[in-house]
Amino acid sequence: MTVADHTAFASAKFAKADLARGTHLFAGLNCFEPGQAQAVHTHDGADKFYLVLEGKARMRVGAEEVEASAGTLVWAPAGVPHGVVRAIERCVMLVGMSLT
Amino acid sequence: MTVADHTAFASAKFAKADLARGTHLFAGLNCFEPGQAQAVHTHDGADKFYLVLEGKARMRVGAEEVEASAGTLVWAPAGVPHGVVRAIERCVMLVGMSLT
Repeated sequence: MTVADHTAFASAKFAKADLARGTHLFAGLNCFEPGQAQAVHTHDGADKFYLVLEGKARMRVGAEEVEASAGTLVWAPAGVPHGVVRAIERCVMLVGMSLT
Repeated sequence: MTVADHTAFASAKFAKADLARGTHLFAGLNCFEPGQAQAVHTHDGADKFYLVLEGKARMRVGAEEVEASAGTLVWAPAGVPHGVVRAIERCVMLVGMSLT
Protein backbone atom coordinates (compact mmCIF):
# COMPACT_ATOMS: atom_id res chain seq x y z
CA MET A 1 0.00 0.00 0.00
CA THR A 2 1.14 3.57 -0.46
CA VAL A 3 1.09 6.57 1.82
CA ALA A 4 -0.17 8.73 -1.05
CA ASP A 5 -3.31 6.59 -1.42
CA HIS A 6 -4.19 7.15 2.24
CA THR A 7 -3.25 10.80 2.62
CA ALA A 8 -6.31 12.96 3.25
CA PHE A 9 -6.91 16.20 5.10
CA ALA A 10 -9.99 17.57 6.82
CA SER A 11 -10.85 21.16 7.63
CA ALA A 12 -12.55 20.43 10.98
CA LYS A 13 -9.59 18.68 12.62
CA PHE A 14 -6.51 16.68 11.72
CA ALA A 15 -7.24 13.47 9.81
CA LYS A 16 -6.20 9.94 10.72
CA ALA A 17 -5.89 6.95 8.40
CA ASP A 18 -5.10 3.36 9.30
CA LEU A 19 -2.46 1.73 7.12
CA ALA A 20 -2.15 -1.60 8.91
CA ARG A 21 -3.12 -3.10 12.23
CA GLY A 22 -1.82 -6.38 13.59
CA THR A 23 -1.94 -8.10 16.94
CA HIS A 24 1.13 -6.26 18.22
CA LEU A 25 1.62 -3.21 15.98
CA PHE A 26 -0.29 -0.38 14.33
CA ALA A 27 0.77 1.83 11.41
CA GLY A 28 -1.19 4.87 10.29
CA LEU A 29 -1.10 8.44 9.06
CA ASN A 30 -1.86 11.70 10.84
CA CYS A 31 -2.50 14.55 8.37
CA PHE A 32 -2.60 18.17 9.53
CA GLU A 33 -3.59 21.37 7.83
CA PRO A 34 -1.54 24.37 8.98
CA GLY A 35 -2.64 25.41 12.47
CA GLN A 36 -4.24 22.08 13.35
CA ALA A 37 -3.14 20.29 16.52
CA GLN A 38 -3.36 16.98 18.32
CA ALA A 39 -4.08 17.31 22.04
CA VAL A 40 -1.36 16.05 24.32
CA HIS A 41 -2.28 12.53 25.41
CA THR A 42 -0.68 9.41 26.86
CA HIS A 43 -0.67 5.74 25.92
CA ASP A 44 -0.05 3.59 28.95
CA GLY A 45 1.84 0.46 27.96
CA ALA A 46 2.34 1.47 24.30
CA ASP A 47 5.42 3.02 22.70
CA LYS A 48 4.81 5.25 19.69
CA PHE A 49 6.72 7.16 17.10
CA TYR A 50 5.89 9.77 14.52
CA LEU A 51 7.94 10.14 11.35
CA VAL A 52 7.24 13.43 9.58
CA LEU A 53 6.95 12.65 5.87
CA GLU A 54 5.94 16.08 4.59
CA GLY A 55 5.66 19.55 6.09
CA LYS A 56 6.54 20.86 9.52
CA ALA A 57 4.99 20.83 12.98
CA ARG A 58 5.72 21.82 16.53
CA MET A 59 5.52 18.68 18.66
CA ARG A 60 5.71 17.87 22.33
CA VAL A 61 6.98 14.81 24.20
CA GLY A 62 7.05 15.12 27.98
CA ALA A 63 8.37 18.57 28.82
CA GLU A 64 10.22 18.93 25.51
CA GLU A 65 9.02 20.73 22.40
CA VAL A 66 10.63 20.26 19.01
CA GLU A 67 10.05 21.63 15.54
CA ALA A 68 9.83 18.52 13.38
CA SER A 69 10.11 18.58 9.59
CA ALA A 70 10.28 15.90 6.90
CA GLY A 71 12.66 13.16 7.96
CA THR A 72 12.37 13.80 11.70
CA LEU A 73 11.39 10.90 13.94
CA VAL A 74 9.71 11.79 17.24
CA TRP A 75 9.72 9.05 19.86
CA ALA A 76 7.04 8.90 22.58
CA PRO A 77 7.74 6.14 25.12
CA ALA A 78 4.87 4.41 26.89
CA GLY A 79 3.35 6.59 29.59
CA VAL A 80 4.89 9.85 28.40
CA PRO A 81 2.44 12.60 27.32
CA HIS A 82 2.86 13.66 23.69
CA GLY A 83 1.03 15.53 20.98
CA VAL A 84 1.24 17.98 18.12
CA VAL A 85 1.19 21.52 19.42
CA ARG A 86 0.60 23.04 16.00
CA ALA A 87 1.21 22.19 12.37
CA ILE A 88 3.36 24.97 10.91
CA GLU A 89 2.91 23.69 7.35
CA ARG A 90 0.51 21.13 5.89
CA CYS A 91 1.98 18.03 7.42
CA VAL A 92 1.83 14.25 6.93
CA MET A 93 3.17 11.94 9.64
CA LEU A 94 3.55 8.21 9.72
CA VAL A 95 2.63 6.85 13.13
CA GLY A 96 3.89 3.52 14.44
CA MET A 97 2.54 2.27 17.75
CA SER A 98 2.77 -0.96 19.70
CA LEU A 99 -0.46 -2.70 20.63
CA THR A 100 -0.95 -4.77 23.73
CA MET B 1 16.31 12.74 15.60
CA THR B 2 16.48 12.68 11.83
CA VAL B 3 16.58 9.87 9.32
CA ALA B 4 19.33 11.69 7.42
CA ASP B 5 21.65 11.62 10.44
CA HIS B 6 21.35 7.83 10.67
CA THR B 7 21.41 6.91 6.98
CA ALA B 8 24.56 4.97 6.11
CA PHE B 9 25.38 2.34 3.51
CA ALA B 10 27.94 -0.45 3.50
CA SER B 11 29.45 -2.27 0.55
CA ALA B 12 29.61 -5.70 2.21
CA LYS B 13 25.90 -5.99 3.02
CA PHE B 14 22.87 -3.81 3.72
CA ALA B 15 23.28 -1.54 6.72
CA LYS B 16 21.02 -1.28 9.76
CA ALA B 17 20.68 1.63 12.16
CA ASP B 18 18.64 1.85 15.33
CA LEU B 19 16.57 5.00 15.69
CA ALA B 20 14.72 4.18 18.90
CA ARG B 21 14.01 1.13 21.02
CA GLY B 22 11.45 0.99 23.81
CA THR B 23 9.91 -1.78 25.85
CA HIS B 24 7.25 -2.50 23.21
CA LEU B 25 8.45 -0.97 19.94
CA PHE B 26 11.54 -0.60 17.77
CA ALA B 27 12.23 1.92 15.00
CA GLY B 28 15.23 1.70 12.71
CA LEU B 29 16.59 2.07 9.21
CA ASN B 30 17.59 -0.52 6.64
CA CYS B 31 19.84 0.93 3.92
CA PHE B 32 20.55 -0.99 0.73
CA GLU B 33 22.94 -0.41 -2.11
CA PRO B 34 21.57 -1.56 -5.48
CA GLY B 35 21.65 -5.35 -5.66
CA GLN B 36 21.83 -5.89 -1.90
CA ALA B 37 19.23 -8.12 -0.24
CA GLN B 38 17.87 -9.12 3.14
CA ALA B 39 17.32 -12.85 3.51
CA VAL B 40 13.73 -13.93 4.02
CA HIS B 41 13.18 -14.41 7.75
CA THR B 42 10.37 -14.61 10.28
CA HIS B 43 9.65 -12.89 13.59
CA ASP B 44 7.41 -15.04 15.74
CA GLY B 45 5.19 -12.88 17.89
CA ALA B 46 6.28 -9.57 16.34
CA ASP B 47 4.52 -7.55 13.65
CA LYS B 48 6.73 -5.42 11.42
CA PHE B 49 6.48 -2.88 8.65
CA TYR B 50 8.85 -1.30 6.21
CA LEU B 51 8.21 2.14 4.78
CA VAL B 52 10.39 2.85 1.76
CA LEU B 53 11.70 6.40 2.14
CA GLU B 54 14.03 6.52 -0.87
CA GLY B 55 14.77 4.26 -3.81
CA LYS B 56 13.16 1.05 -4.94
CA ALA B 57 13.35 -2.61 -3.96
CA ARG B 58 11.74 -5.94 -4.70
CA MET B 59 10.29 -7.27 -1.46
CA ARG B 60 8.63 -10.44 -0.33
CA VAL B 61 5.97 -11.13 2.31
CA GLY B 62 4.72 -14.70 2.44
CA ALA B 63 4.21 -15.88 -1.13
CA GLU B 64 3.80 -12.35 -2.49
CA GLU B 65 6.46 -10.21 -4.14
CA VAL B 66 6.06 -6.48 -4.65
CA GLU B 67 8.17 -3.72 -6.14
CA ALA B 68 8.22 -1.08 -3.43
CA SER B 69 9.29 2.51 -4.03
CA ALA B 70 9.31 5.66 -1.91
CA GLY B 71 6.02 5.98 -0.06
CA THR B 72 5.18 2.26 -0.10
CA LEU B 73 4.46 0.54 3.19
CA VAL B 74 5.07 -3.20 3.34
CA TRP B 75 3.38 -5.02 6.21
CA ALA B 76 4.79 -8.28 7.60
CA PRO B 77 2.51 -9.83 10.23
CA ALA B 78 3.98 -11.91 13.03
CA GLY B 79 5.02 -15.35 11.85
CA VAL B 80 4.98 -14.52 8.13
CA PRO B 81 8.32 -14.86 6.29
CA HIS B 82 9.51 -11.59 4.73
CA GLY B 83 12.60 -10.01 3.28
CA VAL B 84 14.12 -7.84 0.60
CA VAL B 85 14.71 -9.86 -2.54
CA ARG B 86 16.86 -7.19 -4.16
CA ALA B 87 17.32 -3.44 -4.00
CA ILE B 88 16.71 -2.09 -7.49
CA GLU B 89 17.97 1.37 -6.57
CA ARG B 90 19.88 2.63 -3.54
CA CYS B 91 17.15 2.31 -0.97
CA VAL B 92 16.38 3.59 2.54
CA MET B 93 13.58 1.96 4.54
CA LEU B 94 12.14 2.85 7.90
CA VAL B 95 11.41 -0.29 9.89
CA GLY B 96 8.88 -0.42 12.72
CA MET B 97 8.58 -3.59 14.74
CA SER B 98 6.79 -4.61 17.90
CA LEU B 99 8.87 -6.01 20.74
CA THR B 100 7.65 -8.58 23.21
